[in-house]
Amino acid sequence: MAIDVDAARQDTRGTAHATHLDSAGSSLMPRPVADAVVAHLRREELVGGYAAAAEAAERLEAVYSSLARLIGSSPGEIAVLESGSTAWAAAVSRLRPAAPRVLLGRTEYWHNVLVLRRLARRDGLELVVLDDDAHGQVDVAHLRRELDRGDVGMVALTHVPMGGAQVQPAAEVGRACRAAGVPFVLDACQSAGQLPLDVQELGCDVLVGTGRKFLRGPRGTAFVHVRRELLDRLEPELSERRSPARDAGEGRARLLESWETGVAARLGLGRAVDHALELGPEPIRDRVRALAESLRGRLAALPAVQVHDRGLVRCGIVTFSVRDRPPDRVQAHLAGQRITVSTAPLPPPAAEQVLDPAPEHQTVAVRASVHYYNTEEELDRLAAALS
Amino acid sequence: MAIDVDAARQDTRGTAHATHLDSAGSSLMPRPVADAVVAHLRREELVGGYAAAAEAAERLEAVYSSLARLIGSSPGEIAVLESGSTAWAAAVSRLRPAAPRVLLGRTEYWHNVLVLRRLARRDGLELVVLDDDAHGQVDVAHLRRELDRGDVGMVALTHVPMGGAQVQPAAEVGRACRAAGVPFVLDACQSAGQLPLDVQELGCDVLVGTGRKFLRGPRGTAFVHVRRELLDRLEPELSERRSPARDAGEGRARLLESWETGVAARLGLGRAVDHALELGPEPIRDRVRALAESLRGRLAALPAVQVHDRGLVRCGIVTFSVRDRPPDRVQAHLAGQRITVSTAPLPPPAAEQVLDPAPEHQTVAVRASVHYYNTEEELDRLAAALS
Repeated sequence: MAIDVDAARQDTRGTAHATHLDSAGSSLMPRPVADAVVAHLRREELVGGYAAAAEAAERLEAVYSSLARLIGSSPGEIAVLESGSTAWAAAVSRLRPAAPRVLLGRTEYWHNVLVLRRLARRDGLELVVLDDDAHGQVDVAHLRRELDRGDVGMVALTHVPMGGAQVQPAAEVGRACRAAGVPFVLDACQSAGQLPLDVQELGCDVLVGTGRKFLRGPRGTAFVHVRRELLDRLEPELSERRSPARDAGEGRARLLESWETGVAARLGLGRAVDHALELGPEPIRDRVRALAESLRGRLAALPAVQVHDRGLVRCGIVTFSVRDRPPDRVQAHLAGQRITVSTAPLPPPAAEQVLDPAPEHQTVAVRASVHYYNTEEELDRLAAALS
Repeated sequence: MAIDVDAARQDTRGTAHATHLDSAGSSLMPRPVADAVVAHLRREELVGGYAAAAEAAERLEAVYSSLARLIGSSPGEIAVLESGSTAWAAAVSRLRPAAPRVLLGRTEYWHNVLVLRRLARRDGLELVVLDDDAHGQVDVAHLRRELDRGDVGMVALTHVPMGGAQVQPAAEVGRACRAAGVPFVLDACQSAGQLPLDVQELGCDVLVGTGRKFLRGPRGTAFVHVRRELLDRLEPELSERRSPARDAGEGRARLLESWETGVAARLGLGRAVDHALELGPEPIRDRVRALAESLRGRLAALPAVQVHDRGLVRCGIVTFSVRDRPPDRVQAHLAGQRITVSTAPLPPPAAEQVLDPAPEHQTVAVRASVHYYNTEEELDRLAAALS
């Protein structure tokens, strides 16, 4: 079933306000999501935060089931946190690799790289950046050669870069990692909500996603899946949440959670996941992909615009530059016409730059990211504003 | 100026719903706080989370100024986080003590103790629980003797316990620590919002507070003050937020923050702090203290009720037991009469039990915590429901 775009726009108050092309930054919440968050806040105002959470206990537990359904996991393998970066660091820093080399892709999110660098210092690990293939995707042949050495303790991959269209061949990477018995950590913050995700198919042991981007959830929400077999290997951290019920069994992943949290936002995250599941991850992917290709076609026709997107499989993120115009100027110009885009660094061209994610090593581009509620007319508006 | 209780109740939608006596758990947000959170969420719904945050940039920065005003700190010494426990752990785990002994009080929050135990293992520290004096407050003479040994690297004190009335003599502790040149970490999660706090007067180097309790802010908000002189000693952690602007200078405390956060809740926290400042920390303290003493008097008159509160200076937390009735049964009974209280463990009687905060070492009591918006009539209702 294709997406009913009119219904989706009716359901999204923000579509009447502006042309929003920043779902890779922070998307527009659909009405039921924002309403769920507000309803819980109003309830907290009336009965207090603890009583309101107790009333919502079943719905709060259902957030784990919804996330599990979204990514083919199980509720006990899921933790809900406030930030994808924090969630990624919380899981990865507890998985002491059993071998000294850690492989990562060129699209790895810069914050993950900083965490890996500190882990490397702490645990004496070596970080190895995998080659790209001709399409700007991770070279799986290189990955296999590295795995064959037998000294790889972990593989980290960012599924979709923050600035770039390429969808990494995660399932292929996962198969290779599983065959080698090496933990595979997938950062799906930019893919969750725009692409179907299944941790079995992807073969990943850890998967991190965030709420505010393509999932259309509230800000301050994120989640992490840790495969059951790895949960027992999670080392306690100084700040971890503790309770006897969570220390063992079904809820052990929740050790990664912090003690206090914004309950209303969590309920909104659950509603956002249910909303995506109702529409269907495949129809969402198909529409997002079609809109993005359509936008790339429009931009390619503009002589002053250069589209940077690479990848055999490309997603809803479109990156481009305008000749002689700095990206932030372009962003401001578009904002003046009520078109919301953002800027983002492109994946660095050289391996050393991946390991040293300093601003001076980054080429920043304009990023327009489409979601299923966007329309061809909105893409026309963007192209017109740029020409 | 005394608190205008009628106005405060008009301003608090929840007072019409039930008798709320759980400000030590999660208080009732005043109308302007809840409205500020909802207004920002609605704006996020309309323009997207990033654009909404950009519009609110000044108000977001003002949250730091408000918090600084509340506790006599400066905006650059403040970080805003989601959880007090996380904030405490984030600051303390980065302050590698320069000497091997760490002193703590008997009222220390159990999660802090778990963090200290892991720090002790990591860094080879020895944890020393300070004696109580006859009033159930930390024995400052014992503290001074320990400090005189010259091998103390840090002193940690929880200002007000989660289950107990005693207000620790934090300023005396602070003076002793400052004289000895030893960092002093004050957990003010239960005191912020019900007692005036001034980090200069308290002599503390780190102070942690939370939003949802007596400050009447939204859930999922907390803050930490780190004295300027200590900011340079903060060690980077695996998951820390990084940006060149925050790595140095004014905003360095913000290293402790996570990358993504619930912006609406932050704005609510700022509004809650402003609200407390408008009413005045001293009038709030005076009314809270008077109501709590009044409640203790009522409860003492009931033959089946035992009040546990100790302390020379006592705050708005009232703990008690009802003969032959488990605390959670009492809580449920009161909830049936629309009276909201909670249960909480009392500070353990023996030092070893402080260091081993397991459920079997804890005596749990009923906790009724008053705020300035409560009334004598509500206290009558509680007493009547218990008799």
